[in-house]
This record gives sequence, C-alpha cells and structure tokens, in this order.
Amino acid sequence: MFHLQGEESRHLSRVLRVRVGNAVEVLDGRGTIFRTEVVGVNGRVVVLKNLESVQVAKPRVAFDLGVSLPKGGGMDDIVRQLTELGVSFISPLFSEHGDVANVEHRAEAKMGKWSRISSEACKQSGNPWAPVIREPRSFDRWLRELPAGGVRLIGCLGANAVSVSSVSKSFATDIAFAIGPEGGFSEVEKAIAEDAGFVPVCLGPHTMKVGTAAICALAVACEKFGV
Amino acid sequence: MFHLQGEESRHLSRVLRVRVGNAVEVLDGRGTIFRTEVVGVNGRVVVLKNLESVQVAKPRVAFDLGVSLPKGGGMDDIVRQLTELGVSFISPLFSEHGDVANVEHRAEAKMGKWSRISSEACKQSGNPWAPVIREPRSFDRWLRELPAGGVRLIGCLGANAVSVSSVSKSFATDIAFAIGPEGGFSEVEKAIAEDAGFVPVCLGPHTMKVGTAAICALAVACEKFGV
Repeated sequence: MFHLQGEESRHLSRVLRVRVGNAVEVLDGRGTIFRTEVVGVNGRVVVLKNLESVQVAKPRVAFDLGVSLPKGGGMDDIVRQLTELGVSFISPLFSEHGDVANVEHRAEAKMGKWSRISSEACKQSGNPWAPVIREPRSFDRWLRELPAGGVRLIGCLGANAVSVSSVSKSFATDIAFAIGPEGGFSEVEKAIAEDAGFVPVCLGPHTMKVGTAAICALAVACEKFGV
Repeated sequence: MFHLQGEESRHLSRVLRVRVGNAVEVLDGRGTIFRTEVVGVNGRVVVLKNLESVQVAKPRVAFDLGVSLPKGGGMDDIVRQLTELGVSFISPLFSEHGDVANVEHRAEAKMGKWSRISSEACKQSGNPWAPVIREPRSFDRWLRELPAGGVRLIGCLGANAVSVSSVSKSFATDIAFAIGPEGGFSEVEKAIAEDAGFVPVCLGPHTMKVGTAAICALAVACEKFGV
C-alpha cells in the first residue's frame, strides 16, 4: 500500500482526477516501477494498492554531465532535459567565465528546485532511475571526485577538438562530459582538464548555449558509449 | 556600407554600446560574414563600413527536422536550439496527436516570431546559414515535399526501432528526421511514413518531450551523417 500525500495526492486527485479502480504507476527513482490500483481518494490522501513491482536494471553506463551554471534560471530546463535522456549525475559547475553569483548564495534553494524538476521529468518520461544532482562545485573539485578509469570528454570549439564519433570506443562504465559556459572554460581550467585526461571534443561548428551543448553532448555520448 | 536601423541599431547602440571604431560582424544568413567597423552611431542608425567579407560554404548535408508542434510556446526554444546546431530546414508539423489549435489560426504571427528567434540564435551562435522555417503543415504534406533519395528517419519508442548508429552510413545530402508529439504519431501517420521509406529509430528508452527529442535527433544525426 502507498499513502500519497501533499503535492503527489493533489496532482493525482485534482489534476489527473484518478478514481478508485484506476491504474497508477509509482516510481521510486531507484529503478523500481510499482504497478498499482487506486483504492482510496480524497483531496489530501490517495491510497494505492501495489499489484506488481518491476525492477529495471541500472543503466550499464553512468553519464556524469559537468555543466557550467548558465545565467538566470537556465539550469532548470537543463536538469529536465538531461533527466529525460537518462543521465546518472548532474554536476552544476562554478567556472571562471560562468555565472557564480546567481547560485552561490542560494545553492540550497536551487538544489531543492532541481530535485523537484528532475522527479517531475522522471514521471513524465518514465525514467525509473532519478539522477543524482550534485551540489554546485568548482570545476577543479568535480574533477578530483570523478571515478578513475572512465572516459572523460570536454566540449571545445578549438582546432584541436575531435568529433565524438572519432573518440576510441570504450567499454568504460563511467563517462564524464564537461560543458563550459558561453564564454568557454578559462585557460587554467582547460589545463587542469588536460592533466586529468579529458579529451577535447567538438559538438559542431557554432557556439551553442550551455543547455543546447549539454543535451547534445549527452545525446551523442549515449549513442556512442551507451548502446 | 551598412545602415542598420530599428531593432538592430537599438541593440548595437544601447545594449552593446558600440562606439565609432569598434569591430562588428554582420551575417546575411546566406553564408556571408562581413567584418565591419563602426563609422557612425546614433540612437536610430548605426553605420558600418565593410572591411572584409568571408563566404562560408553551405553545409554539405541539409537536415530537415519535421517537428510536431508542442503545446504552448514550446516551439520557440526548439527553433533556437536547432538553429544553434545548424539545421537547414525546420518544418513544424500538425500531427494527429499534437497541438493544432494553438497554431493553426495564428501561423503568420508564429512564423514571424520563429524567424526573429532564429536570426537571434544565428547571431549568438555565429551560424552564418539561417535555417528555412517552413509554414506549419500536415505530416502528410511535409512528406510529399521532401526531396527524393535522402535518408529518412522517424523517432519511435517501438520494439522495431533501431539506434541511429546502426542505420547504414550514407553519403546522401538530404536527411529528414520526423519527431512526433508526446502522444506519438498516429497509426495512420506511421503507415504513411513507412510507405515513404522512413526508418524508425530510437533516441533512448524514455518518452522525451518534443523539444528534447528534436535536439537529440539533430545532434546524433549530425554526428552520424554530417561529419
């Protein structure tokens, strides 16, 4: 039995207008899908009876997107889109040319909002594995916490960047992809990334916004390493 | 010489605060980049002297994204993101399970808005080739107007869908990619697409929103066919 309260019960009873006998799927964000039936509804509580639970295997490859925080509320859509696509870790980054002031002093509120957006995107897209959203951190700190032995890519426009297709195929299960701010990573950040084994890859000839670059990066990396 | 007026001169003089002697790049949306210098500024007119013009070759492959119109203003971000990535044609589609009412009676206003968003995205991303944005049309009419002999892909979640990587490599110069509404294409639309030679491809295991699916589709298609 599930007793849903608060926002979840309100959404089910008032927006989706479920009635006793309706089928509802419940996700726990850790791979389990519960197929349930509504056995009780009122404005405050919806009671669901579990009929069957299905465990979906964790994705074989874990993608960690290190995304430089864009200006304003731009990270919200990025969290939603990366979740729809099945990212494992979202790592918002403070980078030298990025927007620090906007988030630094209200990281907690932002984290709460991103978590809600991500849960919502899991429900809408049917993704049973909610991503881990890391607390915003410096590029440097993110690099130091990545697992050893994975593939590491950094989006660049420079002449030394290669296409993702031309990166050697790898059976690594950890893929980290760094996406810089619109002004690009600083020279210091690029040097740190190079030392940490990041391969500069090109996502196209134009300067994309952070959100466009992040979703393109995950899409091509999934296609290359995830299938 | 260029005499910029209206929105363009206001943006240059009041937002970017250009002064006589500053360098400004002008795009014509047809592949030419003019490197100019400001020779006159007032609130209403900015005068630029052309120093050099560079012609950027048209992309070898033309991508035509047939995108089912999402609810509300969702198409605006799609136009921006597809332009940043370098799409050649954006074809907004009325599809059976999509949102027709929202656009059908104000297609002209929408077209104007999309054209402005796309120009803005060309400027921000440095894309010298503005996409052609077609008038919204039915799926059926879009298919009938596609050039013969290109690659045709349709995003699907079904069991018969393959990954884009596994589609045979082609040197075709026209790639059409159809993205359905969140409710999916109807059975009739799928049958029409099959008859027209569309290959069902899978963009991941989850149900993406139209915008996420469209940008992912273009990213993986560019990586596969465009480089």
